[in-house]
Amino acid sequence: MDLSPDWVVGFVDGEGCFHVSVNRHPEMKFGFQVLPEFVVVQHSNDRFLLFALKRFFRAGTVRSNHGDRDCLRIRKLDSLQNVCDFFMKHPLKSRKNVDFRKFRQIVLMMLDKKHLNVEGMIEVIDVALEMNSLDRPRLLEVRSALLNG
Amino acid sequence: MDLSPDWVVGFVDGEGCFHVSVNRHPEMKFGFQVLPEFVVVQHSNDRFLLFALKRFFRAGTVRSNHGDRDCLRIRKLDSLQNVCDFFMKHPLKSRKNVDFRKFRQIVLMMLDKKHLNVEGMIEVIDVALEMNSLDRPRLLEVRSALLNG
Repeated sequence: MDLSPDWVVGFVDGEGCFHVSVNRHPEMKFGFQVLPEFVVVQHSNDRFLLFALKRFFRAGTVRSNHGDRDCLRIRKLDSLQNVCDFFMKHPLKSRKNVDFRKFRQIVLMMLDKKHLNVEGMIEVIDVALEMNSLDRPRLLEVRSALLNG
Repeated sequence: MDLSPDWVVGFVDGEGCFHVSVNRHPEMKFGFQVLPEFVVVQHSNDRFLLFALKRFFRAGTVRSNHGDRDCLRIRKLDSLQNVCDFFMKHPLKSRKNVDFRKFRQIVLMMLDKKHLNVEGMIEVIDVALEMNSLDRPRLLEVRSALLNG
């Protein structure tokens, strides 16, 4: 199934999510890992759309999510850069575009390896905190741990 | 905001719903009313997208739904015919297209006024029963009432 750019924008305006989490990871510098990901969740009946999106972006993994839902996740930084380039060229129409711009800012900072020093990592977290995120308490906790370092 | 056909298809693949209910209505023939509707629900932050869709289809009403969600509903038969014509020309890619085909069948039957006799009304309900609907018990109840006169 071929997807057109406009269809992808419309579908992602509805079903897509730009998400940034910060996880404890003993092997990483400072003990934390920043994890930006682009996620699309769909009923497993429509899993074929997730595979079509995976082909469209030439990236990502389709897995079972909760219950009867599957999801496509794109996590690799260079793939996320391609995703961001696409949505810069073909802007989202929903308010999701506001989060996307912050998300892109974080991806670009990480491509610049800014998150590999404490100041940069805190800067990344500060941008993530401006996003419409469920991980707010966690982000604040990590920020505080880094500041008190 | 101008919407392209492909964006509309993508967004409706994600967020749209084709729904047929049968309600008790004392003023209607047989005491029942068939109500097909095309619905798009959205967080109220993105209400402007519902208004853009309303302009796109030149039909419908945007109202508050539950909590912080709003919805666009298109119910007028001639407007639904336009909606159906659009999605015949620009097919949905998700499994929602299967429901859409049944929905269109019902709209066409109603435009032919088939639902104004008992046999036609039962035929409409039988097509609605093939749809992925939450109203199944209700539809079966009405069907049984109609069969038993």
